[in-house]
Amino acid sequence: MIKRYINNPLITPEMVRPSMEGYNVLGAFNPGVSLYNGHVILIMRIPENCVEQKGFVSVPYYEFKNGEGFPRIRKIARNDPDLKLKDTRAVIYKNVEYPSTVSHLRIARSEDGISFRIEDKPFIYPCIGYESLGVEDARISKIEDTYYINYTAVSGDGFCTMLAETRDFKEVIRKGIIFPPLNKDVAIFEEKIKEKYIALHRPHNQWFGRPSVWYAESFDLINWGNHKCLIRPGDDDYENVKIGGGCAPIKTKEGWLEIYHSVGDSGKPGTEIYYLNLLLLDLDEPWKVIKRSSSPVMAPEKNYEKRGFVNNVIFTNGMIVKPDGSVDIYYGACDETICLAQTSVNELLNML
Amino acid sequence: MIKRYINNPLITPEMVRPSMEGYNVLGAFNPGVSLYNGHVILIMRIPENCVEQKGFVSVPYYEFKNGEGFPRIRKIARNDPDLKLKDTRAVIYKNVEYPSTVSHLRIARSEDGISFRIEDKPFIYPCIGYESLGVEDARISKIEDTYYINYTAVSGDGFCTMLAETRDFKEVIRKGIIFPPLNKDVAIFEEKIKEKYIALHRPHNQWFGRPSVWYAESFDLINWGNHKCLIRPGDDDYENVKIGGGCAPIKTKEGWLEIYHSVGDSGKPGTEIYYLNLLLLDLDEPWKVIKRSSSPVMAPEKNYEKRGFVNNVIFTNGMIVKPDGSVDIYYGACDETICLAQTSVNELLNML
Repeated sequence: MIKRYINNPLITPEMVRPSMEGYNVLGAFNPGVSLYNGHVILIMRIPENCVEQKGFVSVPYYEFKNGEGFPRIRKIARNDPDLKLKDTRAVIYKNVEYPSTVSHLRIARSEDGISFRIEDKPFIYPCIGYESLGVEDARISKIEDTYYINYTAVSGDGFCTMLAETRDFKEVIRKGIIFPPLNKDVAIFEEKIKEKYIALHRPHNQWFGRPSVWYAESFDLINWGNHKCLIRPGDDDYENVKIGGGCAPIKTKEGWLEIYHSVGDSGKPGTEIYYLNLLLLDLDEPWKVIKRSSSPVMAPEKNYEKRGFVNNVIFTNGMIVKPDGSVDIYYGACDETICLAQTSVNELLNML
Repeated sequence: MIKRYINNPLITPEMVRPSMEGYNVLGAFNPGVSLYNGHVILIMRIPENCVEQKGFVSVPYYEFKNGEGFPRIRKIARNDPDLKLKDTRAVIYKNVEYPSTVSHLRIARSEDGISFRIEDKPFIYPCIGYESLGVEDARISKIEDTYYINYTAVSGDGFCTMLAETRDFKEVIRKGIIFPPLNKDVAIFEEKIKEKYIALHRPHNQWFGRPSVWYAESFDLINWGNHKCLIRPGDDDYENVKIGGGCAPIKTKEGWLEIYHSVGDSGKPGTEIYYLNLLLLDLDEPWKVIKRSSSPVMAPEKNYEKRGFVNNVIFTNGMIVKPDGSVDIYYGACDETICLAQTSVNELLNML
């Protein structure tokens, strides 16, 4: 059984300070999660747009200088003949498309895993061209003393996965693109297997097929190979659009236990629903699937999961496994808030 | 100046024996090229469909057993209610899509580079699920004594790039996926730079942008990283759809010289034209672009380049550079035949 925390959501956009004056926080969701010095760390995705000003359309963007990024506002007169309003997601100015929101990654810290202190400043934010349209959905994997953070970088080149590392959640070292576009939903295992790092990834392998969960190996976390497709979406309504990995899997006696998401629709645009599902991989040969849930273990149910910035989305890319085997799943609801659901390793295994 | 060989095309589909009875050869094009023991080797892409039989629709496919592939024919009665004819490219039977053609790779050998003996049997053909819809567009890179062959594998998972190696063009060792889907147009440099192998690749980085030429590095040809976008298509009619690499670049005094393709249209579907273009990369730091041609160096001009299986396609993924600096560019015309165009390293550099 997976039990939602009674006072969900834990974090809402109103609790987050804009990263600069004139910006407006639209969401705080899909956190990467880790324990650091006994505290729970969330690396949240924070999308921002611009505060409305009468007579103008304003969009956020970052200016890049020497590998650093500086948030800016592009302000265009509403009556400028070169301006075209596309939809709520983007404006077109002089034939170039500017998205109306850009995400950065922000840290929140907690002693009890419930009450969070949210930092005032971004932790990871666009600094290079590949990140110009935002950085999204961090996953944290602790390997020895280093916390490896992977996140989605979005730009005109598409979306790809970047690696960064930190030891203190203050200084961050960027390691560049590890999975080139189009690729996201990367989960790096928290230990090596036969001297190799392992990751799940989600290349946009859409052709006759649909986006699936893939496996890759690396000797150094930088160069990746030995790609294999682990699981593909079936035709059922809960997964007929696509599937993708969550965070690093839990090592259990029965195998590597992964909570992954699926997206399904009833065949009509605008009816997409996100679900959580379970996957068990072989301990020594994690490219072998032992079990896979045949129906979702969690579906949007509560009002805060069904109505929001994007309706009917639950998405997890971070959790804490405690020494007693209990599991705190942090998850994004409706691309807007952060919620908590609690279960245990044994209960998850029993659901399979 | 690039001069077409007067008796083009060199190889036409009629010259190629079907890989099994009941199959029909539709093309012989886009060859990977190498010198081996003083002979020119082409690894050609050979698409096949099935010979028509009255009252039936037949499509080719491969059956897989223990990593081997066996060509087969799926024969469906035309009046079967579960059959839907989609278009010339595929049929749908019991809601599954079956392409009407599957490609394999076939060797042709020549002493003079003009007259080729075509082998009767496929060299590389679908053997695993990732190749179920065909193997296409080989590139050959000779590094020390080994010939590394990369090729596009097509399946329901999309298209991705596989690596294989041979020392004699008889035995081939398969090394698996090196660039996961969607990725093709991979060109591995024929020498290491600072102990690293280098490749150009073409992730399907379509989002706001368009498919572009990327750079990657590897210590072992298996695991790839340090991905960077080298060049993106501009808005001109000759490249406004996409661009992609050719074969391994030529090492010149001025830099690494690459012949790459561009695809442009006049904004209307069905008006796509393929062109050849030039790119010069820094010798020591090949992720740095020194020069790029500002208009195509070769465009479809001759009848055999303008009318065929697919109209208006010229595409090269193989060439021979001779000791005197002359260059034989083998290229596919109209996804149907193999042609030759001749030039020299100096002339190519002068065109830049």
